[in-house]
Amino acid sequence: MANKAITSRDVDFAKWYTDVVEASRLAKYSSVKGCVILEPNGCELWDNIQFNLDKLFKETGHKNVKMPMFIPESLLEKEGELVKGFAPEVAWVTHGGSKKLEERLCVRPTSETLFSDYYSSVVRSYKDLPLLYNQWCSVVRWEKETRPFLRSREFFWQEGHTVHATSEDAENETRRMLEVYKKFFNEYLAIPVISGRKTEKEKFAGAVYTLTLEALMYNGVCLQSATSHYFGQKFSKAYDIKFLDKDNSYQYAYQTSWGTSNRMIGALIMVHGDDFGLVLPPKIAPTKVVIIPIGEVSEEVNRLKNILSNASISFIVDESDKTPGFKFASSEVNGIPIRIVVGKKDLDNGNITIFRRDTRENIVVSKDIDIVSKLNEIMEDIQSNLFLKAKKRMESMTFEAKCLSDFESIVNNQPGFIKASWCGSEECEVKLKNLTGIKSRCILESEKPNDTKCAICGSDAKHLVVWGIQY
Amino acid sequence: MANKAITSRDVDFAKWYTDVVEASRLAKYSSVKGCVILEPNGCELWDNIQFNLDKLFKETGHKNVKMPMFIPESLLEKEGELVKGFAPEVAWVTHGGSKKLEERLCVRPTSETLFSDYYSSVVRSYKDLPLLYNQWCSVVRWEKETRPFLRSREFFWQEGHTVHATSEDAENETRRMLEVYKKFFNEYLAIPVISGRKTEKEKFAGAVYTLTLEALMYNGVCLQSATSHYFGQKFSKAYDIKFLDKDNSYQYAYQTSWGTSNRMIGALIMVHGDDFGLVLPPKIAPTKVVIIPIGEVSEEVNRLKNILSNASISFIVDESDKTPGFKFASSEVNGIPIRIVVGKKDLDNGNITIFRRDTRENIVVSKDIDIVSKLNEIMEDIQSNLFLKAKKRMESMTFEAKCLSDFESIVNNQPGFIKASWCGSEECEVKLKNLTGIKSRCILESEKPNDTKCAICGSDAKHLVVWGIQY
Repeated sequence: MANKAITSRDVDFAKWYTDVVEASRLAKYSSVKGCVILEPNGCELWDNIQFNLDKLFKETGHKNVKMPMFIPESLLEKEGELVKGFAPEVAWVTHGGSKKLEERLCVRPTSETLFSDYYSSVVRSYKDLPLLYNQWCSVVRWEKETRPFLRSREFFWQEGHTVHATSEDAENETRRMLEVYKKFFNEYLAIPVISGRKTEKEKFAGAVYTLTLEALMYNGVCLQSATSHYFGQKFSKAYDIKFLDKDNSYQYAYQTSWGTSNRMIGALIMVHGDDFGLVLPPKIAPTKVVIIPIGEVSEEVNRLKNILSNASISFIVDESDKTPGFKFASSEVNGIPIRIVVGKKDLDNGNITIFRRDTRENIVVSKDIDIVSKLNEIMEDIQSNLFLKAKKRMESMTFEAKCLSDFESIVNNQPGFIKASWCGSEECEVKLKNLTGIKSRCILESEKPNDTKCAICGSDAKHLVVWGIQY
Repeated sequence: MANKAITSRDVDFAKWYTDVVEASRLAKYSSVKGCVILEPNGCELWDNIQFNLDKLFKETGHKNVKMPMFIPESLLEKEGELVKGFAPEVAWVTHGGSKKLEERLCVRPTSETLFSDYYSSVVRSYKDLPLLYNQWCSVVRWEKETRPFLRSREFFWQEGHTVHATSEDAENETRRMLEVYKKFFNEYLAIPVISGRKTEKEKFAGAVYTLTLEALMYNGVCLQSATSHYFGQKFSKAYDIKFLDKDNSYQYAYQTSWGTSNRMIGALIMVHGDDFGLVLPPKIAPTKVVIIPIGEVSEEVNRLKNILSNASISFIVDESDKTPGFKFASSEVNGIPIRIVVGKKDLDNGNITIFRRDTRENIVVSKDIDIVSKLNEIMEDIQSNLFLKAKKRMESMTFEAKCLSDFESIVNNQPGFIKASWCGSEECEVKLKNLTGIKSRCILESEKPNDTKCAICGSDAKHLVVWGIQY
């Protein structure tokens, strides 16, 4: 029987999502409209995501910095496309104490402007390059409709901003960081993704082009999961980032930026979760194991605690005064990968019970086995099982459309990734969006069109594009 | 010869401080008035402080959460004293996009209001208590004069907020967290502190009482370094945090808050730094060792790299194209505790040279010694040496005043901590401040007055107080 506090995911997916967020105590709406509170479970999960992804950034030579949270209006306005893209949704600070500010400041919606301003003051010579910086922070966008982890007025993210001497270096960085994200999604979050280039309409305001990772949720809705932008010299010209090159000439630098956010937590919920709550892949779960003692079993529990501590497997022991049933349900809601039940009866037969969250199987094992090897083996199996299950689902929900009515019938039946050829015109994107709600997710650059004609207008096809309904 | 980019600390302390911040690339002023950028060295140092202090918080049962950065005006106003204390220095968001907000929001200057609002919605029963939460974030206070790490409009800090069923539990928590900070200052930052209670005039707006740690900088100026506040039921009554007690009656909860900030970096600079730049205690230095190769010595450098990696001693190798002299100076400016110079000549004699940053001594050792033990031994010695040196200085700069003219002559000659008896009246505090610029730092609760009379007004003394000039 599924958790009573959680609506079935096949009955009402949106309600199921909200129920899981609440029941697993990841986040809670605050008294500040459109802003959530990350409760201990949500904060710990985000901290663990940050810790692991940050390691990948450091391994690829990146360093962290911290920019101010405010951007003066005049600084924001220097790059025309960026300000056009973000001005409608920024929060403005107009007063400091009781005084009106001479110039209003926006709370950063993204920090290209601040990084570029900084780079213009520190980049002097080709010897200073590349500069590979990143920051972890929260940003603010004044959204109308909000949803925990998917869309909120303040959200947590990281934004990498790099400066290079050549376009080649900058483009390599743009691709390289997409690969870093892909590795993280596949190997840590156990989430399969497709990658490609955004269309001109969907690219980041101010970018020459945007690369993206797109993931598919359980209900067939797409989630833009990480993006990596190549800026060329757009910002360096607007913010005057020049350097003295090897040949003694002044050159404008080339830049990139790339980011991903606490949407990753939304993706974890909607890719792996079930009617019992959250399901966390072991590599990203802050707590890998919960031990639940039933009866007088403290000796065995202490023995296990020692073994797990020595093996650096993070665990908790639920010694609260709740019933075993309550403890089981709560460890499942929280998505803890493995539960070890140490019961008096089992123990009298020399056994303990291992429960794996992904398949909800109980495995009775002798308490004398090599428990660390067993747990590691199960965790590896959970990790790959979750990825393969999600991948199989993504593949089964990837469709092809040859004409407009194909799009319509797919989206009315079972939405998903829809592959279709496209002529390259924005008009077709707008038309499809208006008729069906479907938007382009990305251009598959390495694949040829699956038809000679655009599935929307019938003109000559230029690209194979993945389309879908998006969060 | 000291670093040319750095003014001598005995000539112009304020200029020296700014020079060290700039030369060590900890921080840089941004285009946003009163806000700094934490550059990679500063960010890494702050991250490392956070990592280590957070461990102490977790060991004492605390969990992290993340509150929104905004506070609606009506929520801020619920606790009268707090709003009086902070209203003159908050930044107000009045517009979202092009629309005027119905209610303006301040950017958090501190988060008692948000935590209390949250607690009022989750605390139901005595079984829910205590709740021991903390958050790492930045806060904003619209200061007029700013200085990197000491006073800036946006700064990084942590704020713990806890709820308890009894006043006794809450008061224990208030004292316990002051001890945690003291441990961190003494054992990690190698900074000695005095601790005590703030006077009514100097306590936190909204607190019943405030405990504080005060440190003494090289120039004799005091730095309030960490505070821990007992709130009693002030906020629980204002924000309606009630719980059902064991006896089935509803009770208002008892609360605390406690915080410390990136001022710690300012303290590290001003307690340990010298004319060659930053001096970091090994326990808090992100990089413990820099290896500088001179000539063809790659085999030996690789050998050392392996040894240090295996021993988990964080290090960098400076293989840039700069001169050895430049590299020496730069490793010193950055305060790296130990430098290993691997020079061709030394190596031909079987030696390498170890330089310790605190005493600036070179130690020539055989390359065949147990290098890990040697480094650990030197790092421990640096750590305790820095603490003892600072403690000795603090003691030599702790004075006693028996009358007003004592205060004046101390502060005109060599400021420091000034112990003096006090009658308990705010008038005396105001008078002393106006005459000499000296403020009360804290009441030494466990010590008796050193005179029967107040050093300022001559009435009966109630407390022994430490006074000083403050940042």
